[in-house]
Amino acid sequence: MSSLPASPSMVDGASLVARYRQVRARTTRLAAPLSAEDAQVQSMPEASPAKWHLAHTTWFFARFVLEDPAAVPDCWDVLFNSYYVGAGERHPRPRRGLLTRPSLEEVLGWREAVDARVVRGLETGAFDPARRQVLLLGTHHEQQHQELLLTDIKHALWCNPLAPSYRPDLAAVAHAPGAAAQALRWLSRDEAVVEIGAARWPDAGAGFAYDNETPRHRVLVPAHAIAHRPVTNAEFATFVAEGGYATPTLWLSDGWDHVQREGWRRPLYWHEDGAREFTLGGWRERDPHAPVCHLSHYEADAFARWAGARLPTEAEWEAWAAGVDVEGNFADDDASLHPVAPRDAPAADMPADLFGNAWEWTGSAYAPYPGFRPLPGVLGEYNGKFMSGQLVLRGGSCATPRDHVRASYRNFFPPHARWQFSGLRLARDPD
Amino acid sequence: MSSLPASPSMVDGASLVARYRQVRARTTRLAAPLSAEDAQVQSMPEASPAKWHLAHTTWFFARFVLEDPAAVPDCWDVLFNSYYVGAGERHPRPRRGLLTRPSLEEVLGWREAVDARVVRGLETGAFDPARRQVLLLGTHHEQQHQELLLTDIKHALWCNPLAPSYRPDLAAVAHAPGAAAQALRWLSRDEAVVEIGAARWPDAGAGFAYDNETPRHRVLVPAHAIAHRPVTNAEFATFVAEGGYATPTLWLSDGWDHVQREGWRRPLYWHEDGAREFTLGGWRERDPHAPVCHLSHYEADAFARWAGARLPTEAEWEAWAAGVDVEGNFADDDASLHPVAPRDAPAADMPADLFGNAWEWTGSAYAPYPGFRPLPGVLGEYNGKFMSGQLVLRGGSCATPRDHVRASYRNFFPPHARWQFSGLRLARDPD
Amino acid sequence: MSSLPASPSMVDGASLVARYRQVRARTTRLAAPLSAEDAQVQSMPEASPAKWHLAHTTWFFARFVLEDPAAVPDCWDVLFNSYYVGAGERHPRPRRGLLTRPSLEEVLGWREAVDARVVRGLETGAFDPARRQVLLLGTHHEQQHQELLLTDIKHALWCNPLAPSYRPDLAAVAHAPGAAAQALRWLSRDEAVVEIGAARWPDAGAGFAYDNETPRHRVLVPAHAIAHRPVTNAEFATFVAEGGYATPTLWLSDGWDHVQREGWRRPLYWHEDGAREFTLGGWRERDPHAPVCHLSHYEADAFARWAGARLPTEAEWEAWAAGVDVEGNFADDDASLHPVAPRDAPAADMPADLFGNAWEWTGSAYAPYPGFRPLPGVLGEYNGKFMSGQLVLRGGSCATPRDHVRASYRNFFPPHARWQFSGLRLARDPD
Amino acid sequence: MSSLPASPSMVDGASLVARYRQVRARTTRLAAPLSAEDAQVQSMPEASPAKWHLAHTTWFFARFVLEDPAAVPDCWDVLFNSYYVGAGERHPRPRRGLLTRPSLEEVLGWREAVDARVVRGLETGAFDPARRQVLLLGTHHEQQHQELLLTDIKHALWCNPLAPSYRPDLAAVAHAPGAAAQALRWLSRDEAVVEIGAARWPDAGAGFAYDNETPRHRVLVPAHAIAHRPVTNAEFATFVAEGGYATPTLWLSDGWDHVQREGWRRPLYWHEDGAREFTLGGWRERDPHAPVCHLSHYEADAFARWAGARLPTEAEWEAWAAGVDVEGNFADDDASLHPVAPRDAPAADMPADLFGNAWEWTGSAYAPYPGFRPLPGVLGEYNGKFMSGQLVLRGGSCATPRDHVRASYRNFFPPHARWQFSGLRLARDPD
Repeated sequence: MSSLPASPSMVDGASLVARYRQVRARTTRLAAPLSAEDAQVQSMPEASPAKWHLAHTTWFFARFVLEDPAAVPDCWDVLFNSYYVGAGERHPRPRRGLLTRPSLEEVLGWREAVDARVVRGLETGAFDPARRQVLLLGTHHEQQHQELLLTDIKHALWCNPLAPSYRPDLAAVAHAPGAAAQALRWLSRDEAVVEIGAARWPDAGAGFAYDNETPRHRVLVPAHAIAHRPVTNAEFATFVAEGGYATPTLWLSDGWDHVQREGWRRPLYWHEDGAREFTLGGWRERDPHAPVCHLSHYEADAFARWAGARLPTEAEWEAWAAGVDVEGNFADDDASLHPVAPRDAPAADMPADLFGNAWEWTGSAYAPYPGFRPLPGVLGEYNGKFMSGQLVLRGGSCATPRDHVRASYRNFFPPHARWQFSGLRLARDPD
Repeated sequence: MSSLPASPSMVDGASLVARYRQVRARTTRLAAPLSAEDAQVQSMPEASPAKWHLAHTTWFFARFVLEDPAAVPDCWDVLFNSYYVGAGERHPRPRRGLLTRPSLEEVLGWREAVDARVVRGLETGAFDPARRQVLLLGTHHEQQHQELLLTDIKHALWCNPLAPSYRPDLAAVAHAPGAAAQALRWLSRDEAVVEIGAARWPDAGAGFAYDNETPRHRVLVPAHAIAHRPVTNAEFATFVAEGGYATPTLWLSDGWDHVQREGWRRPLYWHEDGAREFTLGGWRERDPHAPVCHLSHYEADAFARWAGARLPTEAEWEAWAAGVDVEGNFADDDASLHPVAPRDAPAADMPADLFGNAWEWTGSAYAPYPGFRPLPGVLGEYNGKFMSGQLVLRGGSCATPRDHVRASYRNFFPPHARWQFSGLRLARDPD
Repeated sequence: MSSLPASPSMVDGASLVARYRQVRARTTRLAAPLSAEDAQVQSMPEASPAKWHLAHTTWFFARFVLEDPAAVPDCWDVLFNSYYVGAGERHPRPRRGLLTRPSLEEVLGWREAVDARVVRGLETGAFDPARRQVLLLGTHHEQQHQELLLTDIKHALWCNPLAPSYRPDLAAVAHAPGAAAQALRWLSRDEAVVEIGAARWPDAGAGFAYDNETPRHRVLVPAHAIAHRPVTNAEFATFVAEGGYATPTLWLSDGWDHVQREGWRRPLYWHEDGAREFTLGGWRERDPHAPVCHLSHYEADAFARWAGARLPTEAEWEAWAAGVDVEGNFADDDASLHPVAPRDAPAADMPADLFGNAWEWTGSAYAPYPGFRPLPGVLGEYNGKFMSGQLVLRGGSCATPRDHVRASYRNFFPPHARWQFSGLRLARDPD
Repeated sequence: MSSLPASPSMVDGASLVARYRQVRARTTRLAAPLSAEDAQVQSMPEASPAKWHLAHTTWFFARFVLEDPAAVPDCWDVLFNSYYVGAGERHPRPRRGLLTRPSLEEVLGWREAVDARVVRGLETGAFDPARRQVLLLGTHHEQQHQELLLTDIKHALWCNPLAPSYRPDLAAVAHAPGAAAQALRWLSRDEAVVEIGAARWPDAGAGFAYDNETPRHRVLVPAHAIAHRPVTNAEFATFVAEGGYATPTLWLSDGWDHVQREGWRRPLYWHEDGAREFTLGGWRERDPHAPVCHLSHYEADAFARWAGARLPTEAEWEAWAAGVDVEGNFADDDASLHPVAPRDAPAADMPADLFGNAWEWTGSAYAPYPGFRPLPGVLGEYNGKFMSGQLVLRGGSCATPRDHVRASYRNFFPPHARWQFSGLRLARDPD
């Protein structure tokens, strides 16, 4: 997939067919290890069944690209609309796990039928540029659901006392000799006005970006320092051992309420035995050198305060990331589907591991950029209406497809969410 | 199954093997129309997945009859223990629907393995009388779960906007020509001391009965009258049409709270179109002459008040039932799995349709009989600890196996429950 | 008050004026130790502010006896109607504590104004017999609220970390020398058909009784034994010490859920220091010989099971009480407003302490007697609609006015309620 | 109070005594119209009783200025600590309304006792500069509680169906002839780097400011336009009339959830009759020309979207406010305690009514400024730990003391809060 052409030309040529085929095939491949029962289950309201992900992503193309009512079987519109009020009634989100019908097999059959029509439409030039743009958007949309499919099924399997593996074949998470995490170094920058964000796609010359990344705009980034690498499991284990979860003054007030109400004592998926963590390959020894993940914003923030630091803002993060290649441990590599300790020594003057491994919580609320305009029509509900009560994460994770993320990419979750591969990198103000 | 020998001899001979085989086979047959996904789903905390019913009933025999730890795969003890505190930890009931593993196929395989061992044990005389008694109890236990499997899957399918059928082949619920419900007649009795309940099984000479039906004891039944047949759909529709659900003075205080909080406007499974109801065969026209069902106790009680009557007590009900054969529309007949209008004119002086079709709510709280003693050991948790906050229902339903019910049988549910096939029969005090 | 004439003549003569005056004056006297702030507070939805009790009891007379809209200031109808749907809209029960206006002073003024009109009406013969009956009912209604005023304010004061006393002057709860609780003796009865309940008031010749006590009717009471005295603090402390609250098999399933959810470890108002309990006189040493109180039905039931016994049914209780004078530690005596150890040795063949001290939980659900008919009109809501989900308590308590209770009196609360003075007496089946 | 000297000198001289006296006296005066019952009530978890405000502000001085355990009566520490974990245990916030003791009278007596000691300490020079700083902070803290006392009692009185007035004497909210709201004008600014925030108090030369306003720092404000006046009642009424509350696409997703769950149909305190609103003087006709208030952030945001605009950021707001005098309709004037239509025509090129009348919701999450450091010690809990899930409001309201607010002042509430005097001003991006 790394050989895909860059986005600008993508809506025009054969590359769009190729991208569509590859993205669609990968989703099906991700679901392949799952039984029909696995694909049915919804372990919490925020998660969705794998079958639903398979169907909803198909619905997106049927509804917004084919735009043919006959492409959506009777009633399925209601079942597989996620939150597009403009697209009609929706089955309540917390009840997605109750849908035993259509079956996984029917949903997979529907995928094939829609794919055949979409590919034929592309190959015969039946779609005008606007529809091809929606189609490209649909492939990025589907990549988001690929990541959610993985994090949702991880949670569902973890809820089972049998602790089944999503893929028992996953290589043990091992760090190569000599790959111990480096001592943390601070990288400093002076105050500067920088440009962040992305040009408005699909304007001429703009590569694909979501509306929430636009417009590209100037922002004043204050003098600050950023850690050259993410916080590791070993560092977070020290926070746990030294009573971090029992010290209210380290926590935001809402965070402390959560700690007490939910009985949090360690990151999600850490075993109480102190040594293991639950992965998509089942219970494994925790690698102390790997980045910590499955933290809520509250935990990331408390750790930073304990460390005498803070979370970076998204502008700080992006200012650093602008100079870095989008490389890291992504889902495509399939080596682990879990964060790993870095293999190579990083450059001396640039932050390492910004992309992949684990999303990094920022201290920035998810809010519109100056001049933000949602996409027109129903797709305007895609991002804008969620700009409330959430925080921005940056950089992608081991569950993110490599070509889905970029320096300007803004992921967002509520501060208590911890079932994503979410970790942190420290920042601090000048002394 | 109607040819099974009577209970007293049952724990001693080949008949126990036959009963075991038949009961076990029927459960598997009941699950046959379900996909693995259907068998996985739990639509509310009170319900259980079909797969769980299949596994839990097997666990009962493995745990209490085979008594061999090796007969229960690792961790499955936790998963499939329902509520026996004395038998160890339990997976939380509301989370049974999250268990995608073991798979339906594995559970069915386990059933076969356990069945083979149980049958071999029976045939080789390996079980002492006490174990054979537990085995017989296990078959009755399994019959209860057969009924729950049907009512639980009915609810789960109903939650799906596609409204799939459990068995599309079920004959349309039709009443034969001339089978219109008869005008209601009242049957009267004078005050009398009568015996109700059952002798304590497995005491000598006692047929099978649950501990909650024992001991047989004397009770004073006051003078009263009882309706010769259950309340019909047509009668309940009149209650609805005349504002029964909007008249607080007809309701118990708790019932009115439920009506308002839950927005009840008609029985569960009645369509808002006023004509159809959801059945195990999907949406069907409602038969006005059939007994109404899927009522909560609150609704049954409100209807009775509206009708100038009351619910019978369980002693009144049993006093009448003692003289009646256990015949009616049961699950074995498989003709409908839904209440049907009576085919034959009833005897003039006895109540009709006491058994089968729909459980009848009584006005009696589920409480211990004088002299009640729970079964010894872990099985003592079977019934006694639920004698709080529930009401007794009598007579069985179209989802009950014929040989599972009897005049002394006490079913019990909380007053708000309405997903069982539960209706009512009127009673009244003398003028 | 003990010199009041018996009920039958009460609605006809000067005695009704006397009773009305005395009851009304006593309510005001009960509220006298309370500040306006104390009288304002509502510590839980089930409780009511003292000011509300003062106003609601007045509303009862203004609405149902004076029947003059001008007797109820504008809007107060809504505020002080408790649950009479037939009498119009009601302020939500859990929000009674938000009513800072009318002030306590205004409510007391209203009491005086209504009292003047009622007394004048009585003295001038302005009320027909039906109204005089409602007036008599109103005095009993007010006595119920006198008890609730005490138990509600006890709870409210206990919620305050300062643990203020309702009446610091209350004599220390001391047991006289030699008043140690006697070793428990069992009193046995053979099976018998007995009459319980009360004749229907206000039928000719019937003394006052609530509709829920009627009609007087025959019931078969099985052979059983009953404890000659209630369970004591010392006995219950042994249950606590021996792990009663940590042993699930002792509890009804609902009870065990409550124990775990609410973290119950001892009776309400027992101090965790193991020695003291909260009383209307503040924290006091617990008297080991006094009857235990402030138990839920769940706790009473678990204790009985632990003791190898059970709770009596209400028919058993009443059959014994029929032969006993209504004497005991009542609220009128004002010596303690708390259960005390008995002063005198009881008769050898009759149960002691049936009346006063602490209500005794029975094992009987609160249900209509055969032939029960609610009072006509709005007052029909008084009792009948609560016959769901509650259990009967018998005998009155140290917070009950002496002339309010009788052998047939049925108090009722949900099984989890423990803020009443509620204890238990053991019963058991014959061996 | 407007003649108070500016802050820098305030911790050093007689002016601090004067300020202390005035602030303390005003709180007592604000509580004067309340009965002990009014002062007792807590209408929702987010609100506090007036008595609690009176006591908590006193506790602040006793605990942090006098620092003498004897200055706080036994147990009162627990009762009147709001949220300072570092200062020990706290009575649960939602249960403040249960504290009938200490009485209002005792609390007022405590105020006098503490005031006498504080004033004596100030006059005798007993407090070192650090304590004098805490004392000054305490006066600002108390002014915040003055505003909360008003908004909390407004809510409590509104919960009472009698709708009592806090002060019936309040002048009717009338707009002078000719004071109709002006047609909305837009004021534009080009992109600029500006300084916002305040110097770190109590550093040398810094006037009083909360830690959350510091440090003063540079920020890039993009080109934008701002409305010259707030949104009026008439404008918001149009939004209501045109279906604003029924159009999901106007709302943030969380906001729409709230609208549906809470049944919001208009601003808090608007009467369903369409004409009146509840004020501290009771029900009044709504002035169409006055600024709208009692909006949640969700409602303000939805209105802005409906109007084709957006909320300003706090940096935009402050950049405009920096050039404007702190004048407006404040609580000191006591003319209304309610927003009023502007009396004077505003300057042509500057926004009007930035201060007073109603807080203005911004689109900015409440987050630390770059370089933010909380106050040292326990007082570090004052602001920082609430920087999660809240949004910034600016400008003060008709319930804010005039000398409490300034251009850099950051108020903050969760997005669903609407019981403050909170309205909005529109902003927009350049075309």
